[in-house]
Amino acid sequence: MKILLSGGAGFIGSHLAEELLSRGHTVLCADDLSLGTETNLSVLKGRRGFAFVTADLRSLRATESVFRKQRFDCVFHLAANSDIQAGERDMTLDLGRTFMTTVNLLSCMKRHGVKQLVFASSSAVYGELPGRISENSGPLQPISYYGAAKLASEAYISAFCRQCGAKAWIIRFPNVIGPRATHGVILDFVKKLKKDPRRLEVLGNGRQFKPYLHVDDLVRAILHVWGKSRGELNCFNVAGRGRTRVSRIAGEVAAASGLKGVKIRYGKSDRGWKGDVPQFDYSLDKITASGWRARLLSDAAVKKAVREIWSENR
Amino acid sequence: MKILLSGGAGFIGSHLAEELLSRGHTVLCADDLSLGTETNLSVLKGRRGFAFVTADLRSLRATESVFRKQRFDCVFHLAANSDIQAGERDMTLDLGRTFMTTVNLLSCMKRHGVKQLVFASSSAVYGELPGRISENSGPLQPISYYGAAKLASEAYISAFCRQCGAKAWIIRFPNVIGPRATHGVILDFVKKLKKDPRRLEVLGNGRQFKPYLHVDDLVRAILHVWGKSRGELNCFNVAGRGRTRVSRIAGEVAAASGLKGVKIRYGKSDRGWKGDVPQFDYSLDKITASGWRARLLSDAAVKKAVREIWSENR
Repeated sequence: MKILLSGGAGFIGSHLAEELLSRGHTVLCADDLSLGTETNLSVLKGRRGFAFVTADLRSLRATESVFRKQRFDCVFHLAANSDIQAGERDMTLDLGRTFMTTVNLLSCMKRHGVKQLVFASSSAVYGELPGRISENSGPLQPISYYGAAKLASEAYISAFCRQCGAKAWIIRFPNVIGPRATHGVILDFVKKLKKDPRRLEVLGNGRQFKPYLHVDDLVRAILHVWGKSRGELNCFNVAGRGRTRVSRIAGEVAAASGLKGVKIRYGKSDRGWKGDVPQFDYSLDKITASGWRARLLSDAAVKKAVREIWSENR
Repeated sequence: MKILLSGGAGFIGSHLAEELLSRGHTVLCADDLSLGTETNLSVLKGRRGFAFVTADLRSLRATESVFRKQRFDCVFHLAANSDIQAGERDMTLDLGRTFMTTVNLLSCMKRHGVKQLVFASSSAVYGELPGRISENSGPLQPISYYGAAKLASEAYISAFCRQCGAKAWIIRFPNVIGPRATHGVILDFVKKLKKDPRRLEVLGNGRQFKPYLHVDDLVRAILHVWGKSRGELNCFNVAGRGRTRVSRIAGEVAAASGLKGVKIRYGKSDRGWKGDVPQFDYSLDKITASGWRARLLSDAAVKKAVREIWSENR
């Protein structure tokens, strides 16, 4: 298939591009390189079926020019602001990079008759729902602009499917970890220890307890549901089994550093920052029933990603 | 209180403004007069505490200039595209008039420290959920851009409350009817009969079955929940009890016209247009428990509004 992959130079996007190419698809990655990097693209350049275009999809005109290059069968929309805390300081970040990119892609899909969209959504759309959260849980009350922009995008995608006879796959990612990460708790800890090898300051009290998923498992999950589920609007939670405490991640990062006597200092708040959801628990019944499960449990995914991120950042 | 009322020259906005003024509030109505009218404003002009400004709140600069006029205690945000079918032809309509007006208001509320927002949301955020829909029902999968823009707005309001320590009241309106309506099934039928007194073409098969609420009851409901419910994010379904079939509305309009032998012709589809939700049933448990109930049942509200809209359009 001919695929447009927005955010293809990013953390998850570049991994997904590799796998799509391996499966024989043609992939045009579009990225404004604001968070995506040339380094991430270097693993893709020269591979058969791969092309790249620098494009800021916040602009409808720029988006339209991408669609004029060729006819796509499917859009994978991963372009987004991924820095949740930065989005809290500046309300326009998620609005532009997550939501307006979605609307512009939909608008071009309509004009060019593209009928398939895979969207990188997030557990953040659920806000702080208690209990085991299924895809049908409500109310949806996000507490960060990151989550708000993801939910706003989902809303437009939902209407678009009905209005234009298109199909969409909305996949609600948990915390995703692995090599090429541009944000997230592991990279944050690694960077802090590189700056000061004696102490590690943790945002929040370390009791945050969430499911983590390795990017390799996520990519398999995305392609699994895209291939299996054929409804109009296919919405899936995805995660590895189990959850991991932030205090455990801090311990793993300190241990993998090889440093002696790292002091781990915790904050007082139950959350790392205002829009941080400190605990959540996903129901994976739907994706499990479809025949997918993560190879790595949450704890194992953390262990692996810690090694990978340390080795990238030596 | 000093209140900014967006969409104050519109159908519901002008009724709400009247009641807010009656209760002693100061009300600045902001409206771009794209759907709102000078006629609606005429009932407000000269009343103590009332002021009006023409402003297109799709522009952040225009919104900011409204906030520079005075300090508000609360914003009632009713400005929106209310023409669902027009929004289906042009995806930017709801995006601009409903969603961007919301984001711009939030942005100005943040800058000016305004901590209360009452938002006119809609049953359309639920899409086609089966069964009795409560405020906590999910999934939220709107089928019209109208519903998408309302849900996208709710998402941003939710994050805003957490991020800025504000309070919001999200009230999910059903079909609202009464004098000064600019759209909707009753006005549509009245206009059609004025054009051709012999026949009335109904969009869809007439079996659509929804709760209708008279605007007088709605205004009471809005002010009731605003006064009673004091959480961070207060979300309420509102409707009159019961539901009314579109075929019954057609009959009421024909009967009230005084015309003889009107032929009512039905379409074949179960819905009036693509984004029409043909049936839905609201749980009103939450608003009922808070001490509010509509004075008029759905059927009675229709009967009253038919008379009122005929008398306005003679």
